[in-house]
Amino acid sequence: MKYFAGIDIGGTNTKIGILNEKGEILNTRSIKTESSKGPENTIKRIWETVGKMANGISINMADIEGVGVGIPGPVVDESIVKIAANFSWGNDFPAKNMFEKITGKKVKIGNDVKVIALGEQLYGAGKGYKSSITIPIGTGIAAGIIIDGKILSGATGAGGEFGHIVIKKDGHKCGCGLRGCLETYCSATGIVREGKIILENNKNSTLLQVINGDLNKLDSYHIFSEAKKGDKVAMEIVDCFCDNLAHGIGTLLNIINPEIIIFGGGVSKAGDIIIKGIEKHLYKYALKMTIDNLKFAFGQLEENAGIKGAAALIMQNRDI
Amino acid sequence: MKYFAGIDIGGTNTKIGILNEKGEILNTRSIKTESSKGPENTIKRIWETVGKMANGISINMADIEGVGVGIPGPVVDESIVKIAANFSWGNDFPAKNMFEKITGKKVKIGNDVKVIALGEQLYGAGKGYKSSITIPIGTGIAAGIIIDGKILSGATGAGGEFGHIVIKKDGHKCGCGLRGCLETYCSATGIVREGKIILENNKNSTLLQVINGDLNKLDSYHIFSEAKKGDKVAMEIVDCFCDNLAHGIGTLLNIINPEIIIFGGGVSKAGDIIIKGIEKHLYKYALKMTIDNLKFAFGQLEENAGIKGAAALIMQNRDI
Repeated sequence: MKYFAGIDIGGTNTKIGILNEKGEILNTRSIKTESSKGPENTIKRIWETVGKMANGISINMADIEGVGVGIPGPVVDESIVKIAANFSWGNDFPAKNMFEKITGKKVKIGNDVKVIALGEQLYGAGKGYKSSITIPIGTGIAAGIIIDGKILSGATGAGGEFGHIVIKKDGHKCGCGLRGCLETYCSATGIVREGKIILENNKNSTLLQVINGDLNKLDSYHIFSEAKKGDKVAMEIVDCFCDNLAHGIGTLLNIINPEIIIFGGGVSKAGDIIIKGIEKHLYKYALKMTIDNLKFAFGQLEENAGIKGAAALIMQNRDI
Repeated sequence: MKYFAGIDIGGTNTKIGILNEKGEILNTRSIKTESSKGPENTIKRIWETVGKMANGISINMADIEGVGVGIPGPVVDESIVKIAANFSWGNDFPAKNMFEKITGKKVKIGNDVKVIALGEQLYGAGKGYKSSITIPIGTGIAAGIIIDGKILSGATGAGGEFGHIVIKKDGHKCGCGLRGCLETYCSATGIVREGKIILENNKNSTLLQVINGDLNKLDSYHIFSEAKKGDKVAMEIVDCFCDNLAHGIGTLLNIINPEIIIFGGGVSKAGDIIIKGIEKHLYKYALKMTIDNLKFAFGQLEENAGIKGAAALIMQNRDI
């Protein structure tokens, strides 16, 4: 039996898993990333942890065939992190090289969102499909695009930077420097901002009651929750959010034409209200033939998507 | 030596080529498609023509290893034409099956735009790149997206329907039924329509002289031609066109992040004025990291792109 390590490096915590050939997780552990101590320190601690974990379930380290790693930031050639996203390991950081030196194993690196998408495609909501797009909606929006089972990374690792397609020319200023990015309307902070604008002109809403009239307390959770209870203003905010998101998704459909869209991230916890809202508006933004057989789903792997997807990076095509 | 037939089926004419293993065209001929006589009739005449062509250059038909075919309309699984585009062979037309029965060869089918893109990627402007997007701009706009040397077809053959991404919500009505599609602003007819709107309010233009004041005579050629001569109004129309096209291309960049964009089609004959105009506006619509190393080019294969791309369909991965 061969085994694989799946590593999901985050800004604060790093999740580590040992998986078998079927992609089943045998053991997981989480350690502090503590990236400020430098990449070598972090990677050594990760590998020591894998060693202890393997020992704990009586797996010989020699039987670990390879290591897959998900990491924030754009990744090229499954090896280089172009731009340091959440921590300061520098641009063009040679993650694969450093991991291979320290572990002595074959290593592949992927962007964290794309790795989650690969996990969902192979072992979660996208299982059985050839092409899927996983869209995490949280403080930002991105898209992990999988075509014929392969991650679309892009020439400089920026494939799937879906949050930054411009849906409104001269719209809100985005943190990326552009204006009118989808993310400025449809991220967790985007929906709150739009919500405040609508609330300013519509004071007759239960939303104002649940936040005690303090707009600074408004959270995307409140908006979806009150909309589900039937508050007209909250419903309008959600409808506006879904219209904008449908614009973005329609654009993706006309370009990629996937089989399934999988939502993840904090905002997606609002559930079916999002899918129903998108379906209401989608035919304004995409060709009918891209929608008719399209499936919508929510991610199924939760916390383990990153570990499973990272391991999948190295498990895929390993005989080639 | 092995040989391949590349077939480029168009609404009026069908171009046929015999190519060697290097993708070099040994012989070409064009016949009338005459699709109204039915697909069997057309395919039989195509194959008879290949027979005559092979005979003319002393190639044994047994040495023709396979046949690649480019055809209008969405194609799935390199075999089925989902929707009849320019002629009435019915939806879900089993092009591969019928071609294989008549020719006795291995056949692959591709959408005509995507096949041209594959030709440019392998033998033309995209040679040496791993990912390219070829954008023909004529009466319509589409995108042939090639990722790691493979055509992005999409689940229902609608991958790359770039002309129908919505760049202006509630904008011009498009032939596809949507509103605000890129195509309504940036196709040959789109730029003329926008040009007329601008000309209505700006009578002081040499454009009005070259069309003798008859707006019905306005053609995209006139607009680019007068803009190059320095006419302010024509320059404004071109700038507006480039701004809208940059919006569309920026969206593509943020999603696909290709290495090179290749323009084709009638409008692209305007040349560098288009690329310069796009570059002026592109940083409003795409992340810097998707633009910095991006190349722009014009298609190099002209009339032969379809034949070469079609043959490439069958030449690619033929040992697998």
